[in-house]
This record gives sequence, structure tokens and C-alpha cells, in this order.
Amino acid sequence: MSINRRLLLVARPSGIPGPRNFADDTVPVRAPAAGECLLETIYLSIDPAMRSWMSEGTGYQQSIPLGEPMRGGGVARVLQSRAEGFTAGDMVQARLGWQSHPTIPGRFLQKLDLAQGTVEDWIGPLGLSAVTAYFGLRDIGGMRPNDRVLVSAAAGGVGQMAVQIARIEGCRVVGIAGGLEKCAFVAGLGAAAAIDYKAQNDLSAAIGHACPEGIDLYFDNVGGPTLDAALEHLRQGARVVLCGRISQTHAAETYGIRNLGKLAASRGRMQGFLVFNYHERYDEARTWLAARHRDGSLQQRLHVLEGLEQAPVGLGMLFRGENTGKLVVRVAD
Amino acid sequence: MSINRRLLLVARPSGIPGPRNFADDTVPVRAPAAGECLLETIYLSIDPAMRSWMSEGTGYQQSIPLGEPMRGGGVARVLQSRAEGFTAGDMVQARLGWQSHPTIPGRFLQKLDLAQGTVEDWIGPLGLSAVTAYFGLRDIGGMRPNDRVLVSAAAGGVGQMAVQIARIEGCRVVGIAGGLEKCAFVAGLGAAAAIDYKAQNDLSAAIGHACPEGIDLYFDNVGGPTLDAALEHLRQGARVVLCGRISQTHAAETYGIRNLGKLAASRGRMQGFLVFNYHERYDEARTWLAARHRDGSLQQRLHVLEGLEQAPVGLGMLFRGENTGKLVVRVAD
Repeated sequence: MSINRRLLLVARPSGIPGPRNFADDTVPVRAPAAGECLLETIYLSIDPAMRSWMSEGTGYQQSIPLGEPMRGGGVARVLQSRAEGFTAGDMVQARLGWQSHPTIPGRFLQKLDLAQGTVEDWIGPLGLSAVTAYFGLRDIGGMRPNDRVLVSAAAGGVGQMAVQIARIEGCRVVGIAGGLEKCAFVAGLGAAAAIDYKAQNDLSAAIGHACPEGIDLYFDNVGGPTLDAALEHLRQGARVVLCGRISQTHAAETYGIRNLGKLAASRGRMQGFLVFNYHERYDEARTWLAARHRDGSLQQRLHVLEGLEQAPVGLGMLFRGENTGKLVVRVAD
Repeated sequence: MSINRRLLLVARPSGIPGPRNFADDTVPVRAPAAGECLLETIYLSIDPAMRSWMSEGTGYQQSIPLGEPMRGGGVARVLQSRAEGFTAGDMVQARLGWQSHPTIPGRFLQKLDLAQGTVEDWIGPLGLSAVTAYFGLRDIGGMRPNDRVLVSAAAGGVGQMAVQIARIEGCRVVGIAGGLEKCAFVAGLGAAAAIDYKAQNDLSAAIGHACPEGIDLYFDNVGGPTLDAALEHLRQGARVVLCGRISQTHAAETYGIRNLGKLAASRGRMQGFLVFNYHERYDEARTWLAARHRDGSLQQRLHVLEGLEQAPVGLGMLFRGENTGKLVVRVAD
């Protein structure tokens, strides 16, 4: 407990990131100053946005300096508190970084209400992936009952929540995922159809078959050719939510989108967003999500890797599409 | 006056449309039935959307059957009326088609209020191009004072109105146009800068130079590489109005947009629209436009071709960017 294990970013990614981009490091635990807490990391979340943080000047946030601990969010236990409102044993959510025992100011910590859900619930159906899907569908996507909704990376952390939230709200949902197993999972979430993009020669035709009336709302987690194919099927007044573009973040050459004319012709709207901009409304989302989780209509499948050292491996899995469910690393019990 | 001269669409376009797509035709004038008016066409408007009407299954409206008169809007004089509310001598606006003496139901005619402006004003600063710019900037673009606005095809029918409306509303406006003469015209409309895209090796760098603080609102009339370059300079929360894509409608191969990641990273919004969907609010737009035209702050430069037979020539000029101002054909005095 006197040692803080860390994973430092030592090389910027080219292609899919992985262990070669990181180095192990140990430093003494830093005792909390006034206003700070010493934490024990329990779970770290592995997310597509991380690659842009690792790169230079490409993302919406400052890139991580080389030699610094990798940035990342997760759940931790308070070991020592010198911050008002926190006591040892509290469970908190924060941008912990890839380290076992971070010391962080209390103002950057959010205490988990364990009456609303377990620690696993707070990284699952109450976590940021779920909150992202909630605001993306509602605020950016203008979701309405009976909308024909298409979700890409539908078995992923955000995608599986988007499928379920849209289904709960009375939409007809079609999911796109890679492989039979993921598609079976997506169908089990209540999607009307699941398209295995790896099995398609003509993704646009497959979307047309699964969405015979077209698409009112496309929740895009992947960008690239999948986005281009979806644009061909937009209905009048369609909304395209640009949530992620995992197909493009590590591509050697950026794919050129050819079907923006379809967006124009449909009088459609395409919009990007960051969940962090909804910070002041997280409680609204979590109240909704917790109620749907309690009544059993909303689940989150986690893909759990064991041990801090697995975080770089997980990053590679994420970009190769090898995870089945929201990817997290368990650092401590 | 007993003869109706018409131009029939006889060949669908490949590349830039022009005279080879049309054939002259004369038919006897058709006397109005109950509810109809016989009209004398005064002006026809030549617009980028026309090429999609000429093509098969590509546009937002039904394509024109071969052998039928070309579709097109304009201003006409009522010669005989059997429609309530119209009398001989009234000036009206309608989808006249490319014909000298159409006979059209009164419900499809809009009477021009000549107290608000002359006939030329009604195809200029009070016309559909102006109304398009008005709703595009305000409703789709969410224009706010001090927005940094970029307008492409800024010397064109819609573009010149967008430049002026944004300037009047207190925005900093930069226009993109082809050639020195057009750029001088755009600067004269009150743009802070005008970019001659034909003189640039690196359009994105030129936009960066002219818009050093980036772009809050991009009013896009051209699509393709210009849109891609503009996306690189979006500020947080930017809006992209997809009004036209004249660079792409006759392109042999559709250009692939590579910078949608910039839209996502800026939390930006991109949206298409049709002015016809604002039909019930045209009066709102025209009241605003007429007041700005009366006080001298809003002008429309027309590029007038003489004679119905010049309409196909004008269509070619439009797609080659040879018009200086909103392109219209004067069919009669």
C-alpha cells in the first residue's frame, strides 16, 4: 500500500495501440495534502477516446505528455481523506489515471451512491457509457417513439446501452456488430435485427434489408464506410449522432465520406457531442438509468480483464473489436 | 400571344447541363379553365437544384419526365384570370416551367406585393434565394451576433444574400468565390475577407488565414473539397448549413469528405434543409428582407440573360461558375 503502480505513456501510437506504448513504473504513494484523498483504484474503464489522448494534437482534449501516467476514468475506494465530504471507505468515480493508488483533490471526485447500484452498476448501466448513450440519443438524436434507429458497434460499451435505451423508449432498433456472437448478444438486447458487418459484402444492402423503411436516427460509434452506408438510408428529417469513430482513429488513411448529399437531401442533421458537456445533467440521466436497471429492462455486459498490467492489452482488444461488452480492468477487489 | 414557346427536357445530363439537353417546342396557348390563369413569363430563375430535377432518381423531388417542359420558378404577368383573387395585370411568382405562356391553377400562384418591391426585387432581395439564405442562417445555422461566418459560392444567388444577412446581423463574414472580380464583389458586400479559391494551392490554409479564430457557422453552397477544408477550422459548437453542393452535382466521381472527425471533435452540427419546408414562414422572411432592402443595407446583384432560349446556356454558365450574381433569364419585358 506504500507503492503506487503506474503505467506511463512512453510512445505515441501508430496503428492500434497496445503494450509497446506503455512502461511500468512504481513510485511511493503520495500522502494527501489538504483537500485531497488517497485512493485505491478498483476498476479502470477502457474507452475508444483514449487513443486520441495518446496522440499529438488530434483530439478534443490535450494529449498526454510522454512519460506521464496514462489518462483514464474509473472507480476507486477512498483510503485516506483530507477532503471535505469524503471519508475512508467511500467509493468514488474520477479520472484516476492508470495507477493503483492515485492522490486526487476531492473536487475532482464524484461519490457513488451505492443505494442506486453496486460498484459494477456504476461502471455499467449507471456509468459514463450509459450516460453518453442517454444524452446522445435524446439531446443530440432527438429520439422519438417509433423512430427507426440504427446503432453501430452495438455490442460495445456505448452501443449496447444505446440499443436498450432506444428500445425502452419505443423505437425499432437495428444493431451493427462484428461476428455471430456479438450479433446474438445484440439481438438479445431487444434489437429487431443485428447485422454482422464482417459477413457482408455490401453493408448498405444489408442495412436496407434490416431497415426497410429507412433510418430516422443513426447512432454512430464507428465512422468511415459504415457511416457512409448508413447515410444512404436516411429518412426525411433524420438525425445522425456522431458519438465515436473507432474505425478511423487508427486507420492509415482517413476514409472519405461520399454520401453527405443524402444527408442534405433528407434535410438531415449530423452532430457530434461530448458527454462531459452534459456534466450538470448527469443526475437526470442516472435517475432514469437506475430506474430502468432496477426494473430489469436495462443491462450492461462488462468484459473484465484482471490486473492493471492488462490495461494496455485491453486497449488493443478494443481497437481490434475483440471485446464482448464494455471493457474494464479490475485493479483491486 | 396565341403561341406558347417551351423548352422540353430531351436528354438527361451527364456532366454540366446545357443546350444539348433541351429542345424548342411551340404549342397553342391553352385558355384557362375555371380556377386557372393564363400567364406571360417575365423572368425565370436559373438555380443549381435544376440539374438534380433533370436527373433520374437523385434529387429530393421527382425528376422531370423526358419530353416535358423543364421545371423552373419565375415571375409572370397574369394575362387572363379565371381564378379567384387574380386579375389581368397582376404580377405573380410560381413554378412556371420554361415556357413563355403557361396556364396554371391560381392556388399555385403567389401574388407579388409591388408595394414591398419591384418585380426585380421579388426575384432578387425578396426572392427565394434570399429567403433560402435567411432560413439557412437563422434556423439551420443558429446564427448569433459576432459569429465567425464562412460562405462558399459567396457571389452566387444564395451566397451573396447569406454574406449580407450575416453581416447585417453583426457577424464577421468571409466569402469564398472564384476569380478576382467575384471576390471584389463579395468584399463590396461587406465581407471581412474574400478568398479566391481558384488562386489557392491550399484552400484550408487560405481559410485559416482569413478566419484566424476559426468558424462558428459555415454556409455551404458547394460541398466537396471546399466543405472538407472548412471543416478543419470549425470552432467548438460550430454549425454547418448544407444548402447546396454545386461542386458535386455534376462531378464524375463524388468527392469523399475526410474531416467529419473535426465536426465530431468540435461538437458541431451539420444539417441540410429545403427552403420549401419553410413555406408557411416566407412572409416573416420577406418582411425582414424588405425592410433591409428599403434601408439600403441589402442588395442583390442579378446576372440577366435575354430570351427564353438563353435558359439552357445559363444552366451551363451556372455550373461552370461563369455567372456574376443571381442568374435569371428575361423572357418578356
